[in-house]
Amino acid sequence: MAGYQAPSTGQTVRAVLFDTFGTVVDWRTGISSAVRAFASSHSLTLDPEEFADAWRAQYQPSLEPVRSGKRPYVSLDTLNGETLDVVLRSHGIGPDVVPPAALESLARAWHFLPPWPDSVEGIGQIRQRFIVGPLSNGTTALLLDMAKAAGIPWDVILGSDVSQAYKPSPDAYRKPATILGLDPGEVMLAAAHNDDLAGARTAGLATAFIARPAEHGPGQARDLAPADNWDLAAESVTELAGQLQAKTRDL
Amino acid sequence: MAGYQAPSTGQTVRAVLFDTFGTVVDWRTGISSAVRAFASSHSLTLDPEEFADAWRAQYQPSLEPVRSGKRPYVSLDTLNGETLDVVLRSHGIGPDVVPPAALESLARAWHFLPPWPDSVEGIGQIRQRFIVGPLSNGTTALLLDMAKAAGIPWDVILGSDVSQAYKPSPDAYRKPATILGLDPGEVMLAAAHNDDLAGARTAGLATAFIARPAEHGPGQARDLAPADNWDLAAESVTELAGQLQAKTRDL
Repeated sequence: MAGYQAPSTGQTVRAVLFDTFGTVVDWRTGISSAVRAFASSHSLTLDPEEFADAWRAQYQPSLEPVRSGKRPYVSLDTLNGETLDVVLRSHGIGPDVVPPAALESLARAWHFLPPWPDSVEGIGQIRQRFIVGPLSNGTTALLLDMAKAAGIPWDVILGSDVSQAYKPSPDAYRKPATILGLDPGEVMLAAAHNDDLAGARTAGLATAFIARPAEHGPGQARDLAPADNWDLAAESVTELAGQLQAKTRDL
Repeated sequence: MAGYQAPSTGQTVRAVLFDTFGTVVDWRTGISSAVRAFASSHSLTLDPEEFADAWRAQYQPSLEPVRSGKRPYVSLDTLNGETLDVVLRSHGIGPDVVPPAALESLARAWHFLPPWPDSVEGIGQIRQRFIVGPLSNGTTALLLDMAKAAGIPWDVILGSDVSQAYKPSPDAYRKPATILGLDPGEVMLAAAHNDDLAGARTAGLATAFIARPAEHGPGQARDLAPADNWDLAAESVTELAGQLQAKTRDL
Protein backbone atom coordinates (compact mmCIF):
# COMPACT_ATOMS: atom_id res chain seq x y z
CA MET A 1 0.00 0.00 0.00
CA ALA A 2 1.33 3.42 -0.92
CA GLY A 3 1.04 6.51 1.17
CA TYR A 4 2.43 9.86 2.22
CA GLN A 5 3.89 9.86 5.69
CA ALA A 6 3.76 13.29 7.32
CA PRO A 7 6.97 14.23 9.18
CA SER A 8 5.10 16.08 11.92
CA THR A 9 2.79 13.20 12.84
CA GLY A 10 4.71 10.13 11.69
CA GLN A 11 1.41 8.80 10.37
CA THR A 12 0.26 8.04 6.86
CA VAL A 13 -2.12 10.66 5.54
CA ARG A 14 -5.42 9.22 4.28
CA ALA A 15 -7.45 12.41 3.86
CA VAL A 16 -6.49 15.88 2.64
CA LEU A 17 -9.05 18.42 3.83
CA PHE A 18 -9.02 22.01 2.59
CA ASP A 19 -9.79 25.34 4.09
CA THR A 20 -12.14 26.85 1.53
CA PHE A 21 -12.53 30.65 1.82
CA GLY A 22 -9.27 31.98 0.42
CA THR A 23 -7.62 28.59 -0.10
CA VAL A 24 -9.95 26.87 -2.60
CA VAL A 25 -12.11 29.81 -3.65
CA ASP A 26 -11.43 33.49 -4.28
CA TRP A 27 -13.93 35.12 -1.94
CA ARG A 28 -12.80 38.69 -2.73
CA THR A 29 -13.55 38.43 -6.45
CA GLY A 30 -16.82 36.62 -5.79
CA ILE A 31 -18.10 38.93 -3.08
CA SER A 32 -17.04 42.13 -4.85
CA SER A 33 -18.89 40.96 -7.99
CA ALA A 34 -22.02 40.32 -5.95
CA VAL A 35 -21.67 43.71 -4.21
CA ARG A 36 -21.24 45.45 -7.57
CA ALA A 37 -24.50 43.91 -8.85
CA PHE A 38 -26.28 44.65 -5.58
CA ALA A 39 -25.17 48.29 -5.57
CA SER A 40 -26.21 48.73 -9.18
CA SER A 41 -29.65 47.17 -8.60
CA HIS A 42 -30.38 49.41 -5.64
CA SER A 43 -28.67 52.58 -6.91
CA LEU A 44 -26.14 52.59 -4.10
CA THR A 45 -22.64 54.00 -4.34
CA LEU A 46 -20.20 51.43 -2.99
CA ASP A 47 -16.61 50.47 -3.75
CA PRO A 48 -17.12 46.72 -4.29
CA GLU A 49 -13.61 45.59 -3.29
CA GLU A 50 -13.49 47.91 -0.30
CA PHE A 51 -16.91 46.66 0.79
CA ALA A 52 -15.86 43.01 0.36
CA ASP A 53 -12.77 43.64 2.50
CA ALA A 54 -14.79 45.42 5.16
CA TRP A 55 -17.31 42.56 5.25
CA ARG A 56 -14.56 39.96 5.49
CA ALA A 57 -12.93 41.95 8.30
CA GLN A 58 -16.05 41.25 10.38
CA TYR A 59 -15.61 37.51 9.87
CA GLN A 60 -13.22 36.52 12.64
CA PRO A 61 -14.79 38.85 15.25
CA SER A 62 -18.22 37.36 14.47
CA LEU A 63 -16.94 33.83 15.14
CA GLU A 64 -15.28 34.70 18.42
CA PRO A 65 -18.32 34.53 20.76
CA VAL A 66 -19.14 31.06 19.39
CA ARG A 67 -15.56 29.83 19.73
CA SER A 68 -15.31 31.08 23.30
CA GLY A 69 -18.63 29.49 24.25
CA LYS A 70 -20.34 32.81 24.98
CA ARG A 71 -22.80 32.13 22.19
CA PRO A 72 -24.20 28.73 21.13
CA TYR A 73 -23.28 27.56 17.63
CA VAL A 74 -25.05 29.56 14.95
CA SER A 75 -24.41 29.02 11.26
CA LEU A 76 -22.08 31.08 9.13
CA ASP A 77 -25.14 32.07 7.09
CA THR A 78 -26.60 33.73 10.18
CA LEU A 79 -23.28 35.41 10.97
CA ASN A 80 -22.83 36.61 7.37
CA GLY A 81 -26.31 38.13 7.53
CA GLU A 82 -25.54 39.91 10.80
CA THR A 83 -22.18 41.22 9.62
CA LEU A 84 -23.70 42.41 6.33
CA ASP A 85 -26.05 44.55 8.39
CA VAL A 86 -23.09 45.96 10.36
CA VAL A 87 -21.09 46.75 7.25
CA LEU A 88 -24.02 48.36 5.44
CA ARG A 89 -24.62 50.63 8.43
CA SER A 90 -20.92 51.52 8.58
CA HIS A 91 -21.31 52.60 4.95
CA GLY A 92 -24.28 54.77 5.84
CA ILE A 93 -26.89 52.37 4.48
CA GLY A 94 -29.75 51.65 6.87
CA PRO A 95 -31.46 48.25 6.90
CA ASP A 96 -34.71 49.68 5.51
CA VAL A 97 -33.21 50.99 2.28
CA VAL A 98 -33.08 47.53 0.68
CA PRO A 99 -35.69 44.74 0.75
CA PRO A 100 -34.82 41.85 3.10
CA ALA A 101 -34.80 39.39 0.20
CA ALA A 102 -32.06 41.39 -1.53
CA LEU A 103 -29.94 41.33 1.64
CA GLU A 104 -30.46 37.59 2.00
CA SER A 105 -29.51 37.09 -1.61
CA LEU A 106 -26.31 39.13 -1.15
CA ALA A 107 -25.38 37.13 1.97
CA ARG A 108 -25.85 33.95 -0.05
CA ALA A 109 -23.07 35.07 -2.38
CA TRP A 110 -20.77 33.31 0.11
CA HIS A 111 -22.27 30.03 -1.21
CA PHE A 112 -21.24 30.70 -4.80
CA LEU A 113 -17.62 31.82 -4.91
CA PRO A 114 -15.29 31.18 -7.84
CA PRO A 115 -12.46 28.67 -7.36
CA TRP A 116 -8.84 29.68 -7.91
CA PRO A 117 -7.72 28.46 -11.37
CA ASP A 118 -5.80 25.45 -10.01
CA SER A 119 -8.27 24.28 -7.34
CA VAL A 120 -10.59 21.95 -9.27
CA GLU A 121 -7.77 20.27 -11.20
CA GLY A 122 -5.54 19.89 -8.15
CA ILE A 123 -8.28 18.49 -5.91
CA GLY A 124 -9.19 16.02 -8.66
CA GLN A 125 -5.55 14.88 -8.78
CA ILE A 126 -5.27 14.48 -5.01
CA ARG A 127 -8.57 12.61 -4.97
CA GLN A 128 -6.98 9.74 -6.90
CA ARG A 129 -4.97 8.70 -3.84
CA PHE A 130 -6.57 10.44 -0.86
CA ILE A 131 -9.98 11.27 0.55
CA VAL A 132 -10.65 14.93 -0.26
CA GLY A 133 -13.09 17.31 1.40
CA PRO A 134 -13.45 20.81 2.78
CA LEU A 135 -12.59 21.70 6.38
CA SER A 136 -14.30 25.02 6.60
CA ASN A 137 -16.34 27.22 8.88
CA GLY A 138 -19.09 27.11 6.24
CA THR A 139 -22.14 24.90 6.67
CA THR A 140 -22.58 21.65 4.78
CA ALA A 141 -25.28 23.26 2.62
CA LEU A 142 -23.03 26.24 1.79
CA LEU A 143 -20.12 23.98 0.88
CA LEU A 144 -22.41 21.80 -1.23
CA ASP A 145 -23.77 24.81 -3.15
CA MET A 146 -20.19 25.94 -3.72
CA ALA A 147 -19.02 22.51 -4.87
CA LYS A 148 -21.89 22.01 -7.31
CA ALA A 149 -21.55 25.48 -8.79
CA ALA A 150 -17.77 25.35 -9.11
CA GLY A 151 -17.44 21.65 -9.95
CA ILE A 152 -15.21 20.88 -6.96
CA PRO A 153 -14.95 17.07 -6.83
CA TRP A 154 -15.10 16.49 -3.05
CA ASP A 155 -15.50 12.95 -1.78
CA VAL A 156 -17.29 14.09 1.34
CA ILE A 157 -18.59 17.38 2.79
CA LEU A 158 -18.80 17.85 6.55
CA GLY A 159 -19.51 21.46 7.44
CA SER A 160 -19.19 23.33 10.72
CA ASP A 161 -22.85 22.50 11.43
CA VAL A 162 -21.85 18.84 11.68
CA SER A 163 -18.89 19.49 13.99
CA GLN A 164 -20.73 22.35 15.76
CA ALA A 165 -17.38 24.09 16.11
CA TYR A 166 -15.46 26.86 14.42
CA LYS A 167 -11.75 26.76 13.61
CA PRO A 168 -9.33 27.02 15.32
CA SER A 169 -11.23 25.18 18.09
CA PRO A 170 -9.71 21.68 18.24
CA ASP A 171 -13.13 20.05 17.75
CA ALA A 172 -13.43 21.73 14.37
CA TYR A 173 -10.40 19.70 13.19
CA ARG A 174 -10.89 16.51 15.18
CA LYS A 175 -14.59 15.83 14.63
CA PRO A 176 -14.27 15.44 10.85
CA ALA A 177 -11.36 13.02 11.42
CA THR A 178 -13.51 11.00 13.83
CA ILE A 179 -16.41 10.86 11.38
CA LEU A 180 -14.02 9.68 8.67
CA GLY A 181 -12.84 6.91 11.00
CA LEU A 182 -9.32 8.37 11.06
CA ASP A 183 -6.84 9.53 13.66
CA PRO A 184 -6.15 13.28 13.54
CA GLY A 185 -2.62 12.45 12.33
CA GLU A 186 -4.06 10.65 9.30
CA VAL A 187 -5.69 13.90 8.16
CA MET A 188 -3.87 16.81 6.54
CA LEU A 189 -5.24 20.34 6.48
CA ALA A 190 -4.30 22.35 3.40
CA ALA A 191 -4.75 26.07 3.98
CA ALA A 192 -3.54 29.48 2.91
CA HIS A 193 -3.58 30.81 6.48
CA ASN A 194 -0.82 30.18 8.98
CA ASP A 195 -3.13 30.56 11.99
CA ASP A 196 -5.47 27.89 10.62
CA LEU A 197 -2.52 25.53 10.14
CA ALA A 198 -1.35 26.26 13.68
CA GLY A 199 -4.80 25.27 14.95
CA ALA A 200 -4.70 22.08 12.91
CA ARG A 201 -1.26 21.18 14.25
CA THR A 202 -2.42 21.78 17.82
CA ALA A 203 -5.29 19.38 17.13
CA GLY A 204 -2.83 16.76 15.85
CA LEU A 205 -3.32 17.08 12.08
CA ALA A 206 -0.67 17.13 9.37
CA THR A 207 -0.39 20.47 7.57
CA ALA A 208 0.20 21.92 4.10
CA PHE A 209 0.51 25.61 3.26
CA ILE A 210 -0.82 26.86 -0.05
CA ALA A 211 0.24 30.41 -0.92
CA ARG A 212 -2.61 32.69 -2.03
CA PRO A 213 -0.84 36.05 -2.30
CA ALA A 214 -3.80 37.71 -4.06
CA GLU A 215 -6.48 36.61 -1.59
CA HIS A 216 -6.71 40.08 -0.09
CA GLY A 217 -6.03 41.89 -3.35
CA PRO A 218 -2.94 43.91 -4.27
CA GLY A 219 -0.77 44.86 -1.34
CA GLN A 220 -1.53 41.76 0.72
CA ALA A 221 0.86 41.69 3.67
CA ARG A 222 -0.08 38.54 5.56
CA ASP A 223 0.28 34.82 4.83
CA LEU A 224 2.64 35.33 1.92
CA ALA A 225 4.85 32.45 3.05
CA PRO A 226 4.74 29.57 5.51
CA ALA A 227 5.33 30.87 9.05
CA ASP A 228 6.29 27.49 10.49
CA ASN A 229 7.71 24.16 9.36
CA TRP A 230 4.45 22.83 7.95
CA ASP A 231 4.74 19.35 6.45
CA LEU A 232 4.35 20.71 2.92
CA ALA A 233 4.22 24.13 1.27
CA ALA A 234 3.10 24.84 -2.29
CA GLU A 235 2.12 27.70 -4.57
CA SER A 236 -1.07 25.98 -5.77
CA VAL A 237 -3.23 22.91 -5.24
CA THR A 238 -1.79 21.33 -8.38
CA GLU A 239 1.73 21.82 -6.97
CA LEU A 240 0.57 20.25 -3.70
CA ALA A 241 -0.80 17.31 -5.71
CA GLY A 242 2.60 16.90 -7.35
CA GLN A 243 4.41 17.00 -4.01
CA LEU A 244 2.09 14.41 -2.49
CA GLN A 245 2.60 12.21 -5.55
CA ALA A 246 6.39 12.58 -5.44
CA LYS A 247 6.63 11.92 -1.70
CA THR A 248 4.29 8.94 -1.73
CA ARG A 249 6.19 5.73 -1.29
CA ASP A 250 5.37 2.09 -0.89
CA LEU A 251 4.78 1.30 2.77
CA MET B 1 -35.87 27.44 -12.72
CA ALA B 2 -36.73 23.85 -13.50
CA GLY B 3 -37.71 21.19 -11.02
CA TYR B 4 -39.62 18.03 -10.26
CA GLN B 5 -42.65 18.60 -8.10
CA ALA B 6 -43.55 15.52 -6.05
CA PRO B 7 -47.30 14.79 -5.97
CA SER B 8 -47.17 13.56 -2.36
CA THR B 9 -45.54 16.66 -0.92
CA GLY B 10 -46.43 19.37 -3.42
CA GLN B 11 -42.87 20.60 -3.10
CA THR B 12 -40.05 20.77 -5.59
CA VAL B 13 -37.46 18.05 -5.01
CA ARG B 14 -33.91 19.40 -4.63
CA ALA B 15 -32.12 16.30 -3.38
CA VAL B 16 -32.51 12.62 -4.29
CA LEU B 17 -31.05 10.47 -1.51
CA PHE B 18 -30.62 6.73 -1.95
CA ASP B 19 -30.90 3.76 0.31
CA THR B 20 -27.65 1.93 -0.36
CA PHE B 21 -27.66 -1.74 0.77
CA GLY B 22 -29.79 -3.45 -1.85
CA THR B 23 -30.78 -0.29 -3.73
CA VAL B 24 -27.42 1.06 -4.96
CA VAL B 25 -25.17 -1.91 -4.19
CA ASP B 26 -25.63 -5.68 -4.42
CA TRP B 27 -24.75 -6.73 -0.86
CA ARG B 28 -25.52 -10.43 -1.48
CA THR B 29 -22.96 -10.81 -4.26
CA GLY B 30 -20.38 -8.76 -2.36
CA ILE B 31 -20.81 -10.49 0.99
CA SER B 32 -20.98 -14.00 -0.47
CA SER B 33 -17.73 -13.34 -2.38
CA ALA B 34 -16.07 -12.20 0.83
CA VAL B 35 -17.44 -15.22 2.72
CA ARG B 36 -16.17 -17.57 -0.01
CA ALA B 37 -12.63 -16.14 0.30
CA PHE B 38 -12.83 -16.19 4.11
CA ALA B 39 -13.98 -19.84 4.19
CA SER B 40 -11.27 -20.84 1.76
CA SER B 41 -8.52 -19.05 3.75
CA HIS B 42 -9.55 -20.70 6.99
CA SER B 43 -10.54 -24.13 5.62
CA LEU B 44 -14.15 -23.74 6.69
CA THR B 45 -17.09 -25.33 4.94
CA LEU B 46 -19.73 -22.66 4.37
CA ASP B 47 -22.36 -22.03 1.70
CA PRO B 48 -21.46 -18.41 0.85
CA GLU B 49 -24.90 -17.28 -0.32
CA GLU B 50 -26.68 -19.02 2.54
CA PHE B 51 -24.23 -17.46 4.99
CA ALA B 52 -24.72 -13.99 3.46
CA ASP B 53 -28.50 -14.37 3.76
CA ALA B 54 -28.22 -15.54 7.36
CA TRP B 55 -25.95 -12.59 8.21
CA ARG B 56 -28.30 -10.13 6.55
CA ALA B 57 -31.23 -11.66 8.43
CA GLN B 58 -29.59 -10.44 11.65
CA TYR B 59 -29.50 -6.88 10.33
CA GLN B 60 -32.92 -5.52 11.25
CA PRO B 61 -33.02 -7.27 14.67
CA SER B 62 -29.61 -5.78 15.51
CA LEU B 63 -30.86 -2.25 14.77
CA GLU B 64 -34.01 -2.58 16.86
CA PRO B 65 -32.58 -1.86 20.35
CA VAL B 66 -31.00 1.34 18.98
CA ARG B 67 -34.17 2.44 17.24
CA SER B 68 -36.28 1.84 20.33
CA GLY B 69 -33.84 3.72 22.54
CA LYS B 70 -32.91 0.68 24.62
CA ARG B 71 -29.34 0.98 23.42
CA PRO B 72 -27.43 4.19 22.63
CA TYR B 73 -26.36 4.66 19.01
CA VAL B 74 -23.58 2.29 18.00
CA SER B 75 -22.22 2.12 14.49
CA LEU B 76 -23.24 -0.39 11.87
CA ASP B 77 -19.62 -1.59 11.90
CA THR B 78 -20.04 -2.60 15.53
CA LEU B 79 -23.38 -4.27 14.81
CA ASN B 80 -21.99 -6.11 11.77
CA GLY B 81 -19.17 -7.44 13.94
CA GLU B 82 -21.61 -8.60 16.60
CA THR B 83 -23.95 -10.28 14.14
CA LEU B 84 -21.03 -11.97 12.38
CA ASP B 85 -20.20 -13.59 15.68
CA VAL B 86 -23.81 -14.75 16.07
CA VAL B 87 -23.96 -16.19 12.55
CA LEU B 88 -20.62 -17.95 12.84
CA ARG B 89 -21.76 -19.62 16.07
CA SER B 90 -25.05 -20.64 14.45
CA HIS B 91 -22.92 -22.34 11.79
CA GLY B 92 -20.95 -24.19 14.45
CA ILE B 93 -17.88 -21.96 14.25
CA GLY B 94 -16.63 -20.67 17.58
CA PRO B 95 -15.00 -17.25 17.87
CA ASP B 96 -11.58 -18.75 18.64
CA VAL B 97 -11.28 -20.67 15.38
CA VAL B 98 -10.40 -17.57 13.35
CA PRO B 99 -8.03 -14.69 14.25
CA PRO B 100 -9.82 -11.46 15.26
CA ALA B 101 -8.22 -9.55 12.37
CA ALA B 102 -9.80 -11.97 9.88
CA LEU B 103 -13.23 -11.42 11.45
CA GLU B 104 -12.75 -7.67 11.35
CA SER B 105 -11.71 -7.88 7.73
CA LEU B 106 -14.79 -9.93 6.84
CA ALA B 107 -17.06 -7.46 8.64
CA ARG B 108 -15.46 -4.67 6.62
CA ALA B 109 -16.71 -6.33 3.43
CA TRP B 110 -19.86 -4.24 4.01
CA HIS B 111 -17.70 -1.19 3.10
CA PHE B 112 -16.80 -2.55 -0.33
CA LEU B 113 -19.91 -3.84 -2.06
CA PRO B 114 -20.37 -3.84 -5.84
CA PRO B 115 -22.91 -1.43 -7.33
CA TRP B 116 -25.78 -2.71 -9.47
CA PRO B 117 -24.91 -2.18 -13.16
CA ASP B 118 -27.11 0.93 -13.55
CA SER B 119 -26.29 2.69 -10.24
CA VAL B 120 -23.20 4.73 -11.10
CA GLU B 121 -24.54 5.90 -14.46
CA GLY B 122 -28.00 6.70 -13.10
CA ILE B 123 -26.72 8.62 -10.08
CA GLY B 124 -24.42 10.60 -12.36
CA GLN B 125 -27.40 11.52 -14.54
CA ILE B 126 -29.56 12.57 -11.60
CA ARG B 127 -26.65 14.58 -10.19
CA GLN B 128 -26.87 16.96 -13.14
CA ARG B 129 -30.11 18.44 -11.78
CA PHE B 130 -30.34 17.34 -8.16
CA ILE B 131 -28.20 16.95 -5.07
CA VAL B 132 -27.41 13.24 -4.76
CA GLY B 133 -26.28 11.32 -1.70
CA PRO B 134 -26.85 8.15 0.29
CA LEU B 135 -29.47 7.89 3.03
CA SER B 136 -28.30 4.73 4.69
CA ASN B 137 -27.83 3.09 8.04
CA GLY B 138 -24.12 2.87 7.22
CA THR B 139 -21.59 5.26 8.73
CA THR B 140 -20.09 8.14 6.79
CA ALA B 141 -16.75 6.28 6.66
CA LEU B 142 -18.41 3.11 5.33
CA LEU B 143 -20.32 5.03 2.66
CA LEU B 144 -17.16 6.89 1.69
CA ASP B 145 -15.17 3.67 1.32
CA MET B 146 -18.01 2.27 -0.80
CA ALA B 147 -18.24 5.37 -2.98
CA LYS B 148 -14.51 5.58 -3.64
CA ALA B 149 -14.22 1.87 -4.45
CA ALA B 150 -17.29 1.77 -6.67
CA GLY B 151 -16.96 5.23 -8.21
CA ILE B 152 -20.36 6.41 -6.99
CA PRO B 153 -20.47 10.17 -7.68
CA TRP B 154 -22.24 11.42 -4.56
CA ASP B 155 -22.36 15.15 -3.91
CA VAL B 156 -22.48 14.67 -0.16
CA ILE B 157 -22.29 11.77 2.30
CA LEU B 158 -24.06 12.00 5.66
CA GLY B 159 -24.09 8.64 7.43
CA SER B 160 -26.12 7.38 10.36
CA ASP B 161 -23.29 8.50 12.67
CA VAL B 162 -24.09 12.09 11.72
CA SER B 163 -27.85 11.73 12.26
CA GLN B 164 -27.32 9.33 15.20
CA ALA B 165 -30.46 7.52 14.09
CA TYR B 166 -31.40 4.40 12.17
CA LYS B 167 -34.15 4.17 9.58
CA PRO B 168 -37.12 4.11 9.82
CA SER B 169 -36.82 6.50 12.79
CA PRO B 170 -38.03 9.89 11.53
CA ASP B 171 -34.76 11.57 12.57
CA ALA B 172 -32.86 9.33 10.17
CA TYR B 173 -34.74 10.96 7.28
CA ARG B 174 -35.18 14.48 8.63
CA LYS B 175 -31.70 15.24 9.94
CA PRO B 176 -30.02 14.91 6.54
CA ALA B 177 -32.67 17.25 5.09
CA THR B 178 -31.96 19.77 7.84
CA ILE B 179 -28.21 19.61 7.24
CA LEU B 180 -28.81 20.15 3.53
CA GLY B 181 -30.87 23.24 4.39
CA LEU B 182 -34.00 21.66 2.90
CA ASP B 183 -37.53 20.87 4.04
CA PRO B 184 -38.25 17.12 4.24
CA GLY B 185 -40.61 17.55 1.26
CA GLU B 186 -37.73 18.86 -0.87
CA VAL B 187 -35.91 15.54 -0.40
CA MET B 188 -36.79 12.30 -2.19
CA LEU B 189 -35.78 8.89 -0.89
CA ALA B 190 -35.11 6.32 -3.61
CA ALA B 191 -35.21 2.79 -2.22
CA ALA B 192 -35.88 -0.83 -3.14
CA HIS B 193 -37.73 -1.48 0.13
CA ASN B 194 -41.34 -0.53 0.70
CA ASP B 195 -40.93 -0.26 4.48
CA ASP B 196 -38.08 2.23 4.05
CA LEU B 197 -40.24 4.32 1.72
CA ALA B 198 -43.09 4.17 4.24
CA GLY B 199 -40.71 5.54 6.88
CA ALA B 200 -39.61 8.31 4.54
CA ARG B 201 -43.20 9.26 3.75
CA THR B 202 -44.08 9.38 7.44
CA ALA B 203 -41.13 11.74 7.92
CA GLY B 204 -42.43 13.97 5.11
CA LEU B 205 -40.12 13.01 2.24
CA ALA B 206 -41.00 12.34 -1.38
CA THR B 207 -40.49 8.73 -2.44
CA ALA B 208 -39.30 6.65 -5.41
CA PHE B 209 -39.33 2.85 -5.60
CA ILE B 210 -36.56 1.09 -7.49
CA ALA B 211 -37.20 -2.60 -8.12
CA ARG B 212 -34.30 -4.91 -7.19
CA PRO B 213 -35.85 -8.35 -7.72
CA ALA B 214 -32.51 -10.13 -7.38
CA GLU B 215 -31.42 -8.48 -4.13
CA HIS B 216 -32.16 -11.61 -2.12
CA GLY B 217 -31.19 -14.00 -4.88
CA PRO B 218 -33.46 -16.30 -6.87
CA GLY B 219 -36.89 -16.82 -5.36
CA GLN B 220 -37.12 -13.36 -3.80
CA ALA B 221 -40.66 -12.89 -2.53
CA ARG B 222 -40.66 -9.40 -1.05
CA ASP B 223 -40.43 -5.89 -2.51
CA LEU B 224 -40.97 -7.04 -6.08
CA ALA B 225 -43.30 -4.11 -6.77
CA PRO B 226 -44.30 -0.82 -5.15
CA ALA B 227 -46.69 -1.49 -2.26
CA ASP B 228 -48.08 2.04 -2.16
CA ASN B 229 -48.53 5.04 -4.43
CA TRP B 230 -44.95 6.24 -4.17
CA ASP B 231 -44.26 9.37 -6.21
CA LEU B 232 -42.20 7.43 -8.74
CA ALA B 233 -41.41 3.76 -9.45
CA ALA B 234 -38.67 2.49 -11.74
CA GLU B 235 -36.79 -0.69 -12.63
CA SER B 236 -33.36 0.94 -12.32
CA VAL B 237 -31.62 4.17 -11.30
CA THR B 238 -31.18 5.09 -14.97
CA GLU B 239 -34.92 4.68 -15.49
CA LEU B 240 -35.53 6.88 -12.44
CA ALA B 241 -33.17 9.46 -13.96
CA GLY B 242 -35.25 9.40 -17.14
CA GLN B 243 -38.51 9.82 -15.24
CA LEU B 244 -37.15 12.75 -13.24
CA GLN B 245 -35.91 14.33 -16.45
CA ALA B 246 -39.24 13.80 -18.25
CA LYS B 247 -41.31 15.13 -15.34
CA THR B 248 -39.13 18.15 -14.69
CA ARG B 249 -40.82 21.30 -15.85
CA ASP B 250 -40.14 24.99 -15.74
CA LEU B 251 -41.44 26.43 -12.52
